[in-house]
Amino acid sequence: MHDPRPIGVFDSGVGGLTVVRSLLERLPHENIVYFGDTARVPYGPKSSQVVREYAAQDTDVLLAHNVKLIVIACNTVSAIAMDVVQKRSRIPVVGVIVPGSAVAAASSRAKRIGIIGTAGTVKSQAYEHAIRSKDPTIHVFSQACPLFVPLVEEGWIDHQVTMLVAKEYLFPLLLQKIDTLVLGCTHYPLLVPTIRSVVPQAVSLVDSGEAAAELVYAEIQRLSIGNTSSAKPLLQFLVSDIPDRFGDIGERFLGQTLGRVKRVSF
Amino acid sequence: MHDPRPIGVFDSGVGGLTVVRSLLERLPHENIVYFGDTARVPYGPKSSQVVREYAAQDTDVLLAHNVKLIVIACNTVSAIAMDVVQKRSRIPVVGVIVPGSAVAAASSRAKRIGIIGTAGTVKSQAYEHAIRSKDPTIHVFSQACPLFVPLVEEGWIDHQVTMLVAKEYLFPLLLQKIDTLVLGCTHYPLLVPTIRSVVPQAVSLVDSGEAAAELVYAEIQRLSIGNTSSAKPLLQFLVSDIPDRFGDIGERFLGQTLGRVKRVSF
Repeated sequence: MHDPRPIGVFDSGVGGLTVVRSLLERLPHENIVYFGDTARVPYGPKSSQVVREYAAQDTDVLLAHNVKLIVIACNTVSAIAMDVVQKRSRIPVVGVIVPGSAVAAASSRAKRIGIIGTAGTVKSQAYEHAIRSKDPTIHVFSQACPLFVPLVEEGWIDHQVTMLVAKEYLFPLLLQKIDTLVLGCTHYPLLVPTIRSVVPQAVSLVDSGEAAAELVYAEIQRLSIGNTSSAKPLLQFLVSDIPDRFGDIGERFLGQTLGRVKRVSF
Repeated sequence: MHDPRPIGVFDSGVGGLTVVRSLLERLPHENIVYFGDTARVPYGPKSSQVVREYAAQDTDVLLAHNVKLIVIACNTVSAIAMDVVQKRSRIPVVGVIVPGSAVAAASSRAKRIGIIGTAGTVKSQAYEHAIRSKDPTIHVFSQACPLFVPLVEEGWIDHQVTMLVAKEYLFPLLLQKIDTLVLGCTHYPLLVPTIRSVVPQAVSLVDSGEAAAELVYAEIQRLSIGNTSSAKPLLQFLVSDIPDRFGDIGERFLGQTLGRVKRVSF
């Protein structure tokens, strides 16, 4: 069946554009509406109660654009407010934790998986629970990496400082002999070259955004709600504030120019 | 005259507690109400329009506590929304830019001053304008240091990485032969030992929060609105969200335990 309605994607800020990038690769014919809550970024350090309120408001922004499926690109929201989005939207909802965990569980032969994310994501233990619900014999080791996001936003992608920070954060995980490392934050795919230079080739890197795009593809096939139009798909970018350098940073995350970005109010 | 009403202080988050610390040293008999907008921190990367809206709401929180004077501890708000707070409150308002600039202008013999702050503060050129309105012959050199705040919040106060970051940010200013460096962000006083190890002793460091406390003292004397009660002054801490580790981080900034922290809604 033909369903031209857009896929809705939201995130606390600009980071979720790496997930849009994965969606564009996997589902090149789909229209997409992206909402970044740039006025209130970051969600990571905020309390659960506040994140759940914000997630409901973000969902409403997408619903007002008649979306057919919602992707929660934000790890923090996926970890602690997925039920809020599901209850409010009554359409399929895909987070990043469940698909990222499934790919990691399937990839790990040593059954030793490392998770990196913001302090909030790590504290939630959401990846740990999702992985161990797949296979309770897997050992999961987590490390919060709060400096990675500001380093990416500063553009210090392959800077000596970023390398030192990566070593400091990742060595404790490598000591645990992990064979799989989950990039549990939308900013981290940009650090793959730096992370790769610290982490041996034998360790698989799992990008939760890529895993989510794969699940969205499967859901759209299953429900027969693909867009079969041959017209160039429409990408819409909405934000709650247009901060400095939004276009520059966004372009780096998306891998292409964003075009017009519209500010919306709640 | 005896005026027991509290001094109100607000900031985008926890950083303004360094200004409270300076106030407690300079004005140990005053009651203080502090409001940190922790649900919406940071203000630095946000647009002027949003910061001005938030500044108005923050002012209302303090006015509801019957404050006699408002200190804007936040450099971003002091730079771009001081008029909003003044218009709304009709009581004396002290920001951090004007007093910090005055102390720097008085301190610099070489007439070459460096400013460090968030991207928003630097982009506003507020220190530059304030200093040059005192003395147009002074040369001002600015450097945004966006990684300093997350490094402080991570607790990497005297870490090798912080030292490297400080060198990278500060060397261009030192090449300009500055003799005075303004710490234009409430988080930076915690980095003084690291900054000092990069910056020669001949360069004076100006803490804008200390300068603001000095101006508050002068204003309270001038207006005869000091608290002459001998009772132990009351410190109240209000936040818009209680994030993880708020108490720990707050204690590091304030130099003493905070006691009870109350969450308020707008």
